[in-house]
Amino acid sequence: MNRYNAGTMAKSPTKLDETTITIVGIGLMGGSIACALKKRRFNGTVMGITRNPKRYKDKKVLKVFDFLESPEDAICRSSLVIFCTPVDFIAQGVLEAAPSCHSSTIMTDVGSVKGTICDDLENQLPENAHFIGSHPLAGSEKQGFEHADADLYQDKICIITPNENSPVDQTDRLKKFWEFIGMRVEVMSPQEHDQILARTSHLPHLLASVLTKTVLNEKTLDFAASGFRDSTRIAAGDADLWTSILLDNADAVLSGLEEYCDVLNEFQQTLHSRDAQALKKLLQNAKTTREQLG
Amino acid sequence: MNRYNAGTMAKSPTKLDETTITIVGIGLMGGSIACALKKRRFNGTVMGITRNPKRYKDKKVLKVFDFLESPEDAICRSSLVIFCTPVDFIAQGVLEAAPSCHSSTIMTDVGSVKGTICDDLENQLPENAHFIGSHPLAGSEKQGFEHADADLYQDKICIITPNENSPVDQTDRLKKFWEFIGMRVEVMSPQEHDQILARTSHLPHLLASVLTKTVLNEKTLDFAASGFRDSTRIAAGDADLWTSILLDNADAVLSGLEEYCDVLNEFQQTLHSRDAQALKKLLQNAKTTREQLG
Repeated sequence: MNRYNAGTMAKSPTKLDETTITIVGIGLMGGSIACALKKRRFNGTVMGITRNPKRYKDKKVLKVFDFLESPEDAICRSSLVIFCTPVDFIAQGVLEAAPSCHSSTIMTDVGSVKGTICDDLENQLPENAHFIGSHPLAGSEKQGFEHADADLYQDKICIITPNENSPVDQTDRLKKFWEFIGMRVEVMSPQEHDQILARTSHLPHLLASVLTKTVLNEKTLDFAASGFRDSTRIAAGDADLWTSILLDNADAVLSGLEEYCDVLNEFQQTLHSRDAQALKKLLQNAKTTREQLG
Repeated sequence: MNRYNAGTMAKSPTKLDETTITIVGIGLMGGSIACALKKRRFNGTVMGITRNPKRYKDKKVLKVFDFLESPEDAICRSSLVIFCTPVDFIAQGVLEAAPSCHSSTIMTDVGSVKGTICDDLENQLPENAHFIGSHPLAGSEKQGFEHADADLYQDKICIITPNENSPVDQTDRLKKFWEFIGMRVEVMSPQEHDQILARTSHLPHLLASVLTKTVLNEKTLDFAASGFRDSTRIAAGDADLWTSILLDNADAVLSGLEEYCDVLNEFQQTLHSRDAQALKKLLQNAKTTREQLG
């Protein structure tokens, strides 16, 4: 059984305490949150903020968002504000929104790196404005509201990263929100999040790009079978987004990369010395480990 | 459009000149050939050779194989003999079969490495016994006849590696055989095959194992999302099989690994120096290249 769907998963709450949720940035991630709220019959108001005027006339957008307001109007009425903009714009957006928030308003995001944002905001936010980082482990190479999917978050994990000053009731409300759209929530520090994700997400992305650049050319293109396709699929992700993520988390990625090179060296030595027994042991160990993932 | 299914694909021949085909080793690969021949109504005889006595009573086996003979009896009646055993056993099997072959009998295999086998056999085979290497780029992490699939080879590429002494009519017949079961055939030297496959298949396998070993442990297991799953899926392949493949093609894999480390170093430098522009250029370049693969 896939551990993601393990029997331990809590049943999603069927009602939310939030009255009005504002989603800033309505691309794949933000759009999919709105679609998920609609599907689960959230009985409050969902507002969207976008800088793309075309969206105001888009029927699919209007079906899942109640109003598309100016940022200040939307935020002052919201109990929860979710920033789904590119990672570079999150901290700035939160700071601009802060004066319009009530002390009970939760601000969160969906960014893939948490340390930089959480640290920046902890020092700069006014005392009664609260930001708790979120990172739903869901996504796609595809981008834009066109690909929004009510089930994108279903049965996936969301990591939330409160700091020492985050009000406990807000952490609980945020947890309940992600559970409402079908996620399993894990709570940890921004730093722990970044160390883990450097290894499970950011490093693999970098390496898929490295492998693609090493191997793929006119001569080899026809001979790249399904194994190669699988192992390089994430290299097709957006270059701007991944530049931001990798640089925001550069220290942890570089430290993961060092560990990777040590292991790579171990494998390389067995090839150099034609040591079948040692190579097989390494491959068998990786196989057994990978099989735990399902 | 996926290049694999490009409009240039030739129509499969609907008839084969072969009268009797013997498949040595009836696991996933050999079993799937027999299933494909059945599905395409091959009007000759298909014989299977296995060291597993259970198979003689297996109804699914008996449905696709006409007889399960002793090796000598089967081979002396065959126009085509296909070795689908683990790579380590192919050369030995071909040498043992050679005395039973007619001069028109083609022997081939489905092994993932071609240089060692083709070189060994070229020097050791009697003059009127002919071996032409094949490598159908199809497979699965799953093994055994239980997973045999009549469509495993459909629309995939098969590389065949004749040498200078291979009779042209035999190369043509072998090409026609793989096309008959739905494949697109490319012809190249065993050495060229091994250089290309070291990069598109063997190296990616090694690296998926390295990444798995670096990243996956009790702490990270829950946070490995779809990107990590995709990029490490092949690490679940059979350790014995991959030890043989990697060692048989060790020189080419090591040379691919050196190129990989050079590219890795380029990416690493952009992270060290926090050079967003250079990193983005590398990622964008990999993205554009990967997108050609579909």
